[in-house]
Amino acid sequence: MANIAIIGAGVMGSALSVPAADNGHAVTLVGSPLDDGIIEVLRSPGGVHPKLDAPLPAGVRPVTQAELQSTVLDEADVIIAGVSSPGIDWFADYVETRLSRPKPIAFVTKGLDLLGGALATYADTLPRRMTRCQAFVGIGGPCIARELAKCVPTLSIYASPDRDVADRLRSLLQTPYYRLATTADAVGLEACAALKNFYAIGVSAMQTRHPDDRRNDGQSKNPCAGAFSIAVAEMTMIVTALGGSGETAIGLAGLGDLHVTVGGGRNSRLGHGLGAGRTVSEVLATDLKGETVEGVDTARLLADWLMGQDDARAQYPLANAITEAVLGDGFFEFDFSALRPT
Amino acid sequence: MANIAIIGAGVMGSALSVPAADNGHAVTLVGSPLDDGIIEVLRSPGGVHPKLDAPLPAGVRPVTQAELQSTVLDEADVIIAGVSSPGIDWFADYVETRLSRPKPIAFVTKGLDLLGGALATYADTLPRRMTRCQAFVGIGGPCIARELAKCVPTLSIYASPDRDVADRLRSLLQTPYYRLATTADAVGLEACAALKNFYAIGVSAMQTRHPDDRRNDGQSKNPCAGAFSIAVAEMTMIVTALGGSGETAIGLAGLGDLHVTVGGGRNSRLGHGLGAGRTVSEVLATDLKGETVEGVDTARLLADWLMGQDDARAQYPLANAITEAVLGDGFFEFDFSALRPT
Repeated sequence: MANIAIIGAGVMGSALSVPAADNGHAVTLVGSPLDDGIIEVLRSPGGVHPKLDAPLPAGVRPVTQAELQSTVLDEADVIIAGVSSPGIDWFADYVETRLSRPKPIAFVTKGLDLLGGALATYADTLPRRMTRCQAFVGIGGPCIARELAKCVPTLSIYASPDRDVADRLRSLLQTPYYRLATTADAVGLEACAALKNFYAIGVSAMQTRHPDDRRNDGQSKNPCAGAFSIAVAEMTMIVTALGGSGETAIGLAGLGDLHVTVGGGRNSRLGHGLGAGRTVSEVLATDLKGETVEGVDTARLLADWLMGQDDARAQYPLANAITEAVLGDGFFEFDFSALRPT
Repeated sequence: MANIAIIGAGVMGSALSVPAADNGHAVTLVGSPLDDGIIEVLRSPGGVHPKLDAPLPAGVRPVTQAELQSTVLDEADVIIAGVSSPGIDWFADYVETRLSRPKPIAFVTKGLDLLGGALATYADTLPRRMTRCQAFVGIGGPCIARELAKCVPTLSIYASPDRDVADRLRSLLQTPYYRLATTADAVGLEACAALKNFYAIGVSAMQTRHPDDRRNDGQSKNPCAGAFSIAVAEMTMIVTALGGSGETAIGLAGLGDLHVTVGGGRNSRLGHGLGAGRTVSEVLATDLKGETVEGVDTARLLADWLMGQDDARAQYPLANAITEAVLGDGFFEFDFSALRPT
C-alpha cells in the first residue's frame, strides 16, 4: 500500500483517486482554493462529485487545502497535480511551501509554456521551478475523467525522463479497467496534451462546417477525417520540433487523446461554433461563458512559434487557421482548396 | 481534356465521375452487371443516383456493360475500377477481353488477397492477372462517396509503384474540393484500405459496449479512442509486415480512412451489433441482411496470417478479438484488462 496525495479535486484529479483507491492505497484528495464546495460535498454522507456524477471510493480522504496536515505531502509516495493550467502557479507555490523532501510529482495539467522566451512544455519548465520535484511525470492519453470514475475501460500513458518512475506510478495506479503505457518522452507527451486541445478546435469545426441533413448528428464526415489526419501530421512535426518523439504523437497521447477530445468537451464546442461561422469571442461569451478553454491559451502561445517557422502557412495549414481565428477573432477559414497533402 | 472510363456505377465509382467531369474530362461510367437499374435511372431526365442522392454532371456518359462500344477502353487515358471486392473477378475479365493495349488502371476496390498462399494485397496480385494493366494505382483515404458527389471537401491519396502515374491521375482528378496526396506505397495503401474496414468493426464495437446514458449518442468515448489507437498501431505493424510503409498507415489511407469508417457504414454497423453483445451471424441476418460487409472477408484472410505470427494474441489483441468473433461467430471480447499498452 502506498500513500498518494492528489492536489486539485476537479474532474481529472478526483477521477484518478478511483483506480488509486481501488488498488488499496491511502489517497488524500486535496481541494484547490476553488474546490472547497466540492470537498464539502464529497465529505457529506453519500456525497457524489458534482461534475463526475460518481461517488468516490471509501479509501479516498477529501480535505481542503487550508486544513491539509503538514505531514501528508512528506509522507506521500507520489504527489499528483490535478489542477488545470490556470491553477499551476498556485499548485507550485502550495507544494513548495508544504513539502520538505524530494518527491516524484505527476501532472494531469496540460499546457505549453515559455522557457527563455522559447516555446516549451511543462516537462521542461515545471521541474525548474519546483525544487522538490524529484521526477516529473506527465499523464496523457484518451481519458475522459467522468468515464474513468465509472471504471469504463480506459487507456492512458505516463511519461517521465526517468522511466522507472513512470513504471512505478503505473504499478500503483493500473487496474483491470485503467491500462497504462509508459514512455521516457515527457516532452512529447506534454506537447501532445496541450496540442490536442488546440487541434480539437479546428477538427471539430470541420464537423459543423458542411452540415449533412441525412445524418442523425447533422455532420458530414470527410472534412473532419481529413482535418484529423492533418492534425496528427502537424502535431507530429511540432512535437519533434520541441524535442519530443513523433512516436508519441501517433500513439495514445497524440492521436488517441485527439480522438476523444474531438466531439466532446469545451475545445470541441468552441470548434463547433467556429465551424458554424461564429467568432471565438461570440462563442466564449455565450455557450462557453465563464469556462476555461485551454486550446485558446495554447493558440496564443503557438502563434508566436508559428511565426518563426519557414513557410508556416503551407507546413501547418490547420494550426495557422486556428491561430488566425483565435487571435484575429475572425472567421475560421480552413481552405481545402489550398491544401497540398503529400 | 482526357478520356476517363469508370467501370462500376456503385457509389464510389459514380462519385469519382464528379471531380473528373468538373475538370472537363470526357467520362464514361460503365455499369457492372449489377448496375443496369442505376444506369437506366442516370440516363433518365433529371436522374439522381439512387445511393448517392446527387445528380451526376452533364459531362458523364452512363452506359451498361453490355452496350459499351469496343473503342472506349482503348481510347481512355485511364481506367478506374469502381467495383467492390466481390466484383473484381468480373472486372478483370471484362477489361481483359475489351482492352487491347496497356493502360494505367486505378482501383477503388478494397481487399486483401492471396499470392502463392501468402497474404498479399491487390497491388501485388491484380497486375499479375491483368495483362493490360500498365500501372496499378490504388485509391484510398477518408472519402465517403456520397459526400464527394456533393463536392464536400475531401482528402484522398493515390498510390502507384510508378509514382508519376499517381501524380498524373491526381492532375486529372484534383479539384478545389477534392485534394489528393500521392505515394509510391501501393502495397501499404491497399493493405490499409482493407484493414480499416476490418478494424472499424472492432473500434465501432467499443462505441456501444459501454453505453453512456448522459450523452446524446449514448456512447462512452474512452474505450473507442483507446481501441482506435490500438487499431492504428496494429495496422502499422501489419502494413509493414506485408511490405508497405508504416507512414501510409499513420496517414490519410490508414488512420484517416479508419476515422471516417468508424461510426458510419456497414462495417461499423456490424461492430455496433457486436458491441451490444450480438453475434456476427445475428447482425448479418438482420440489420445487414443482403449487404456486403468487406471487413468480414478481410477477417477470414487475416485469421490465417495471424496464426503464423509469434505471440499474435499479445501483439495484435484487437485483430485477434475481431477474427475470433467473426470466425467463431461468438461474443466479441476485447479484454482491456489483458492489454499491455507500451
